[in-house]
Amino acid sequence: MEVDYSNIKVIGFDADDTLWVNETYFRQAEEEFASLLDGYETKNKIDQELFKMEIKNLHLYGYGIKGFTLSMVESAMDLSNNNVPQKVINQILDIGKRMITQPVELLNGIEEVLENLQSKYRLIVLTKGDLLDQERKVERSGLEKYFHHVEVLSDKKEKNYQNLLEHLEIKESEFLMIGNSLKSDVLPLVNIGAKAVHVPFHTTWEHEKVKEGEDNGDYLKLNSIKDILNYL
Amino acid sequence: MEVDYSNIKVIGFDADDTLWVNETYFRQAEEEFASLLDGYETKNKIDQELFKMEIKNLHLYGYGIKGFTLSMVESAMDLSNNNVPQKVINQILDIGKRMITQPVELLNGIEEVLENLQSKYRLIVLTKGDLLDQERKVERSGLEKYFHHVEVLSDKKEKNYQNLLEHLEIKESEFLMIGNSLKSDVLPLVNIGAKAVHVPFHTTWEHEKVKEGEDNGDYLKLNSIKDILNYL
Repeated sequence: MEVDYSNIKVIGFDADDTLWVNETYFRQAEEEFASLLDGYETKNKIDQELFKMEIKNLHLYGYGIKGFTLSMVESAMDLSNNNVPQKVINQILDIGKRMITQPVELLNGIEEVLENLQSKYRLIVLTKGDLLDQERKVERSGLEKYFHHVEVLSDKKEKNYQNLLEHLEIKESEFLMIGNSLKSDVLPLVNIGAKAVHVPFHTTWEHEKVKEGEDNGDYLKLNSIKDILNYL
Repeated sequence: MEVDYSNIKVIGFDADDTLWVNETYFRQAEEEFASLLDGYETKNKIDQELFKMEIKNLHLYGYGIKGFTLSMVESAMDLSNNNVPQKVINQILDIGKRMITQPVELLNGIEEVLENLQSKYRLIVLTKGDLLDQERKVERSGLEKYFHHVEVLSDKKEKNYQNLLEHLEIKESEFLMIGNSLKSDVLPLVNIGAKAVHVPFHTTWEHEKVKEGEDNGDYLKLNSIKDILNYL
């Protein structure tokens, strides 16, 4: 694919599943949740109901571990008809706490890429989720030194990106976003006239999946984030 | 008090209990929580244990309604020795959801102050808590039009303010913060050489209280936010 990145001044990096592992921990939490509720419903039904609960509560809780934990608690009540033992509620709270304190595991090649790009571009972290949680992960990751700053957005829709670029006082054509979610990190950028690079992670949350046909627009897809150094 | 605000270019407004009512809803929630747990412990003990739980979890959950709700759930387990009926857990989740969707009630004089200052200064909202929750309150409040933008900080310590001012590219001496919390909105600003105005709210969360003797430094205290118009 022919790409011209000569105008780019600022590069936004998605954090979860772009800089470090994240979705894997949610998948593990869902597995554990299903084990805790084993006996009330089939694993398949438990998975489905938890996902439905998350989506139902998304407009209230937004993204992140705290909202996910609250949805697990509510879902445990629903799935068991309020019969789940109280100690299971404690175990659910513990799953959430463990996720929050999980060590940060960097994805392959990230440091090399950031090291290489930091002198040529203004690099920012651009993520959604819990503010405190994301700030803490940046700190623990040891990657803080490469970034100008961290922006946590309540959502990653076109409007959120437009507001951000206005706030940062940069033009759409000068901005490049790199991330693992087509829906959140790539398509909204393409739609507002910015550039985007898609680096898929092996697991994608159901809610972030894009339907066939929605994926129109020009962007660069790379199998490894390291390959970006061939373009920038 | 003699004050010189001639250098000021940017004014930061705290949100909760400065622009609109907030703490009152937490107090109501605590009352309801105590009623739900009535019989397991005295009201006084329930209040104390919930507060302890919030502080214990603060480093994990940060500020905001979601963390508060998770702490209520955990506290209900503890206070009842895991005997609390499951439907009470549902009622606790409902308290949290109701708080999130609570209508925004502006404090007296706020619109007049913002209307008056918006042409002379760059006004920003500077708050801690859940990002989504705070953005939503700004939107619902109808005050969005007065503000350049909203900054949600994970905490309001000196370091957070310093990072922010650096990010906004303004000098300490050009910044004035207005808020109801001495601990979060006033003293850290005074300590880094910025200006601050204290407008107390009738209720202060225990955690935000300042001990005798910690309150040194120069700042302006006003009984009503409208009085700021006499100085700016």
